[in-house]
Amino acid sequence: RREGGKAYVRCGSRASSENTVRVGVLGASGYTGSEVLRLLANHPQFGVALLTADRKAGQPIASVFPHLATQKLPDLIAVKDADFSYVDAVFCCLPHGTTQEIIRGLPNHLKIVDLSADFRLRDISEYEEWYGQPHRAPELQKEAIYGLTEILREEIRNARLVANPGCYPTSIQIPLVPLIKAKLIDIKNIIIDAKSGVSGAGRSVKENLLYTEVAEGINSYGVTRHRHVPETEQGLSDAAHSKVTISFTPHLMPMIRGMQSTIYVEMAPGVSTEDLYQQLKRSYENEEFAVLLGNGVVPRTHSVRGTNYCLINVFPDRIPGRAIIISVIDNLVKGASGQALQNLNLMMGFPENLGLHYQSLFP
Amino acid sequence: RREGGKAYVRCGSRASSENTVRVGVLGASGYTGSEVLRLLANHPQFGVALLTADRKAGQPIASVFPHLATQKLPDLIAVKDADFSYVDAVFCCLPHGTTQEIIRGLPNHLKIVDLSADFRLRDISEYEEWYGQPHRAPELQKEAIYGLTEILREEIRNARLVANPGCYPTSIQIPLVPLIKAKLIDIKNIIIDAKSGVSGAGRSVKENLLYTEVAEGINSYGVTRHRHVPETEQGLSDAAHSKVTISFTPHLMPMIRGMQSTIYVEMAPGVSTEDLYQQLKRSYENEEFAVLLGNGVVPRTHSVRGTNYCLINVFPDRIPGRAIIISVIDNLVKGASGQALQNLNLMMGFPENLGLHYQSLFP
Amino acid sequence: RREGGKAYVRCGSRASSENTVRVGVLGASGYTGSEVLRLLANHPQFGVALLTADRKAGQPIASVFPHLATQKLPDLIAVKDADFSYVDAVFCCLPHGTTQEIIRGLPNHLKIVDLSADFRLRDISEYEEWYGQPHRAPELQKEAIYGLTEILREEIRNARLVANPGCYPTSIQIPLVPLIKAKLIDIKNIIIDAKSGVSGAGRSVKENLLYTEVAEGINSYGVTRHRHVPETEQGLSDAAHSKVTISFTPHLMPMIRGMQSTIYVEMAPGVSTEDLYQQLKRSYENEEFAVLLGNGVVPRTHSVRGTNYCLINVFPDRIPGRAIIISVIDNLVKGASGQALQNLNLMMGFPENLGLHYQSLFP
Amino acid sequence: RREGGKAYVRCGSRASSENTVRVGVLGASGYTGSEVLRLLANHPQFGVALLTADRKAGQPIASVFPHLATQKLPDLIAVKDADFSYVDAVFCCLPHGTTQEIIRGLPNHLKIVDLSADFRLRDISEYEEWYGQPHRAPELQKEAIYGLTEILREEIRNARLVANPGCYPTSIQIPLVPLIKAKLIDIKNIIIDAKSGVSGAGRSVKENLLYTEVAEGINSYGVTRHRHVPETEQGLSDAAHSKVTISFTPHLMPMIRGMQSTIYVEMAPGVSTEDLYQQLKRSYENEEFAVLLGNGVVPRTHSVRGTNYCLINVFPDRIPGRAIIISVIDNLVKGASGQALQNLNLMMGFPENLGLHYQSLFP
Repeated sequence: RREGGKAYVRCGSRASSENTVRVGVLGASGYTGSEVLRLLANHPQFGVALLTADRKAGQPIASVFPHLATQKLPDLIAVKDADFSYVDAVFCCLPHGTTQEIIRGLPNHLKIVDLSADFRLRDISEYEEWYGQPHRAPELQKEAIYGLTEILREEIRNARLVANPGCYPTSIQIPLVPLIKAKLIDIKNIIIDAKSGVSGAGRSVKENLLYTEVAEGINSYGVTRHRHVPETEQGLSDAAHSKVTISFTPHLMPMIRGMQSTIYVEMAPGVSTEDLYQQLKRSYENEEFAVLLGNGVVPRTHSVRGTNYCLINVFPDRIPGRAIIISVIDNLVKGASGQALQNLNLMMGFPENLGLHYQSLFP
Repeated sequence: RREGGKAYVRCGSRASSENTVRVGVLGASGYTGSEVLRLLANHPQFGVALLTADRKAGQPIASVFPHLATQKLPDLIAVKDADFSYVDAVFCCLPHGTTQEIIRGLPNHLKIVDLSADFRLRDISEYEEWYGQPHRAPELQKEAIYGLTEILREEIRNARLVANPGCYPTSIQIPLVPLIKAKLIDIKNIIIDAKSGVSGAGRSVKENLLYTEVAEGINSYGVTRHRHVPETEQGLSDAAHSKVTISFTPHLMPMIRGMQSTIYVEMAPGVSTEDLYQQLKRSYENEEFAVLLGNGVVPRTHSVRGTNYCLINVFPDRIPGRAIIISVIDNLVKGASGQALQNLNLMMGFPENLGLHYQSLFP
Repeated sequence: RREGGKAYVRCGSRASSENTVRVGVLGASGYTGSEVLRLLANHPQFGVALLTADRKAGQPIASVFPHLATQKLPDLIAVKDADFSYVDAVFCCLPHGTTQEIIRGLPNHLKIVDLSADFRLRDISEYEEWYGQPHRAPELQKEAIYGLTEILREEIRNARLVANPGCYPTSIQIPLVPLIKAKLIDIKNIIIDAKSGVSGAGRSVKENLLYTEVAEGINSYGVTRHRHVPETEQGLSDAAHSKVTISFTPHLMPMIRGMQSTIYVEMAPGVSTEDLYQQLKRSYENEEFAVLLGNGVVPRTHSVRGTNYCLINVFPDRIPGRAIIISVIDNLVKGASGQALQNLNLMMGFPENLGLHYQSLFP
Repeated sequence: RREGGKAYVRCGSRASSENTVRVGVLGASGYTGSEVLRLLANHPQFGVALLTADRKAGQPIASVFPHLATQKLPDLIAVKDADFSYVDAVFCCLPHGTTQEIIRGLPNHLKIVDLSADFRLRDISEYEEWYGQPHRAPELQKEAIYGLTEILREEIRNARLVANPGCYPTSIQIPLVPLIKAKLIDIKNIIIDAKSGVSGAGRSVKENLLYTEVAEGINSYGVTRHRHVPETEQGLSDAAHSKVTISFTPHLMPMIRGMQSTIYVEMAPGVSTEDLYQQLKRSYENEEFAVLLGNGVVPRTHSVRGTNYCLINVFPDRIPGRAIIISVIDNLVKGASGQALQNLNLMMGFPENLGLHYQSLFP
């Protein structure tokens, strides 16, 4: 209907001959799936060839996400009915637990970015401990590359299967990995007070996620135990070449998107906050999406809404020898679908920021 | 700093030789100004050459809008210090009342889209009545074209000065103008219950716009008198070739962006809601941004957040002979900066949707 | 634990010998049930003797509603295990559809205020039409008194079973019934644009009630059909002695509590808005909870949060002969549990405002 | 008008012969002032005799706070015009900086609870350092008692001038003072990540408090310096008999009311989280408003909205030897006006919980 007489530049991202890469989205009825579709709408090289959602098979995506009605997109089908021969790459946006088997069944020619937690933990016994079931694809686990782009870019470039990081681990590792590698902070005393928007929980229909239960209040859930802990500790331990145990307290905030990690660290003897600042500056000065702000400027979640940026900064603490690090991301973008696209760009040989030039929707 | 060794596609919209059109933004420290900058960040043909904000002159834009820190943009200067010889077009985002004189002083080669209310009312005595001061540029008023793109596209294409419509008038005129032109509704009984997000009031620091005063409640302001009334009535009267008086009640909603007009109309004798639907279908089937939804689908502000779409639909009323029309926009995009860009695209000879391919930020 | 050595006035509302009325709450795990408990905490004559919630039987109420942990209240039991011989009155806060049978099974000595929709419609065929199942207690229906206190106070005083009104119908009937009775408005042209907070939907776990789906947007649901329509039309038709058909469009707002009905009416020939104002003044000047505001003052939901007030006012419309009426309530208080308590006060012979002296929680 | 023919229990709190205590509120046009009025509406012994607001003198309070229109209250007057001979006690809700001189000028018979920061710091040089001006009433400072009720009850009972604590200091000291006194935690390593609702900033009209700037985001302000630090350190140092320096990072949350302090502590050698729990249990088992929750239950701001409770609990940390303490209050009640009323109750010889039996407005 919308392609009548008027000459205008085509909007929407359905795969066509103009697009060199045909992309599938598995699990398109959740928030990370729909966010991939939002981002792809402006991507010059990727087109959407395939959308799956088993329980919504046969429906147009607009019946699940009315805001996608203005794009031309394929209807939802069941994974089992998908023909992957016309697809070059997939974003796998399925729930953890079911993902391992489905990815194991995908053809070999596909590049895969998995947004679930199913391939993030190298130690499959740790997976079993935290997710309550045995790993179903241990052989693939060995192949999977952890997709924290700024830290593992070269490995990702050559990967076939990328395990896209969780939102909390992304916001924590970006500032801490360079500081730990440079031995600037004490790894036995890392305290992370993290605040997340509600969309981090996905579109799951649970009482504690109702508007009436979330608005106008704070919920500290998982005070002593949260599934993003082992993933974060894995990354920090890699940086430290030694086991790191963190203090991690997530808080659910009355906001849709956005995540802030306020990180309290003890500096190594003789180290100053200026040293931390300079190290982060060196690490990230050529990065587009990991951005150290100017001296004293506080990172704000408002500045990253809808964008792929991770903004960070370092502040002196009143207690001598300690520093405070603040890091903010949009949990659905750099914390999920945006970083996934950044990774797929790399895997397909494109500039990693292609199609990711979104600026924050503020106010 | 961020242009170091890595090869990546440039992000940001500073004017350069690659861009064919050098754009200035007058009044860049308000929300419509910053929204123009957000949209231009992805525009392939427009670059930002000039930013003014008298009270913030000398500052980087990031000190006023931290979320713009990741873009490369010129520093803010005072209007009086601006050199317009290197500028092709301006978005004028200044407050009403001051705009007429400033635009009168601009050089003739500039294309101008004015987002204030200063050139919207053709009848300058009506301007004086509603804005409490005499019109300061009556000669320019004659030249100004009202920028409701879908209705006045050809006039806009050839205009030098476009008066960009208000948010409420946009959301109301898009559905009603075709129905009035086709004589399908009674023009003496148009009742509009409009709901707006808070950003419609701009960044003005007023007690009634504080978080504590807005959140978790509804404020019906301007119940009997609102400045968008004469503008709306002017457009509807043009369509009717007869004076239209509307019932218009705006409500301030606890949300940042988004606007919904719920419009209650009496149909002309013998007319059905299906007739209204078919008329809107004919009027807008080739439009990209004015979108009639499928039968029975309710337009939602969530579907247009950050986008230039106006979604509309028609519903039967329980009272025989009446119909309910719902129209939604993002007040800062189709209701302000997006439509302004749509208009400047036309004025500069580009496809009107260039750089406007944003999909809704949902959730 | 909290009754140790210190002498303080006891807080909490568990029934005791000091309280003359022992109250049960059936369905205490929903929002109207918990709201009854909040209100009773300050009631000088009512004590809570019994709480039921079938699916949560055996649990303390604090496990379902942590905010009630500071009160001393009985544990939840199943309705079938309740001993009503020690109870004088019950608030029935169960879902519609199940309520008729449960109330039919209650002993005769109990005074009952039913907050469900099950006894609101006198015409049991209308009940079947709108609720999709036959009425299960037609004999009780004849006995039930509709609990709109300000309109039916004397009948309520002598009732055994009161059908507590819905929130929308309360906010609409309070302003309109006196105007219709006085024949001041045209009953064929009543247009109601209603806005509700999310708690009106109860604690039901549905996707469209998630924070991520509600915050920062408007949802117009039930545009053409809503279950509160027949109840409202019943009350208005009674006042008119003639069938009234209304235009009614409910909107879900991003706020927890609060309801506003913006009502567009055509006045009878020769009637002015001042006539409407004076009629409402006469009708409600001796009422505590139905309050006509001063001339021109706009009722705000912020002014009634947590309170039993219904604030109303009348405004002239731009269209000659029309008027705009605004009415606000807290949907959980005057729209549910507060009015229920007001009614039980009457039924038990107490002043109707006893225990209802709450002022709005603003900000 | 509302005292017509009907017999009902009087609502509203204007002082009368029935009330034994005539109370004045100085600075009634701010949020702490209006919150005092909300609480007094249900107080059986206190009546409002006097309201001042210099810039609003001559107006009814309802013109400043429409939600107070349903109470009968005196009109606002200027402080200089107040006749204190008919007043027994005042809540002083004026801004810091101006308060010292005004209180110095009050007659001696008045009991005073000052909600500003002007008398909280015993060391007047510290006042000057943090508030940028010399102390104007050093002699009164010696007399002032710090009003943290649970810690200093006996002193408050006999005080004439009480300096009511700040919201952050209240939420922090209630859990920490007993633990520090019992030497259970390391006082050199107390890290406080605090989250506050926006009403904590008062009704000040500032850009960063606009709905558009607050909603849907987190603002970490005062990362390295906040005025509540010296007050908190004063209280903790008193408990420790030694100077305590804290790490304190406040975060502004998108919610109107509510405050959570997430406190990260290192335990003294050999101490367990169970030891902390038992100490808090002993300290607060006879308190009404300082409530230790059951083992493992997370305190939620939703549970204290509109109430005077401080809910606390202790959790084990993943890092051995550390613990996490969570404390929540309503910043306007236990963090301001509620604690002020609790204190005045004591000062006037009443039970401290009189008129404070409010339960949380949830949802």
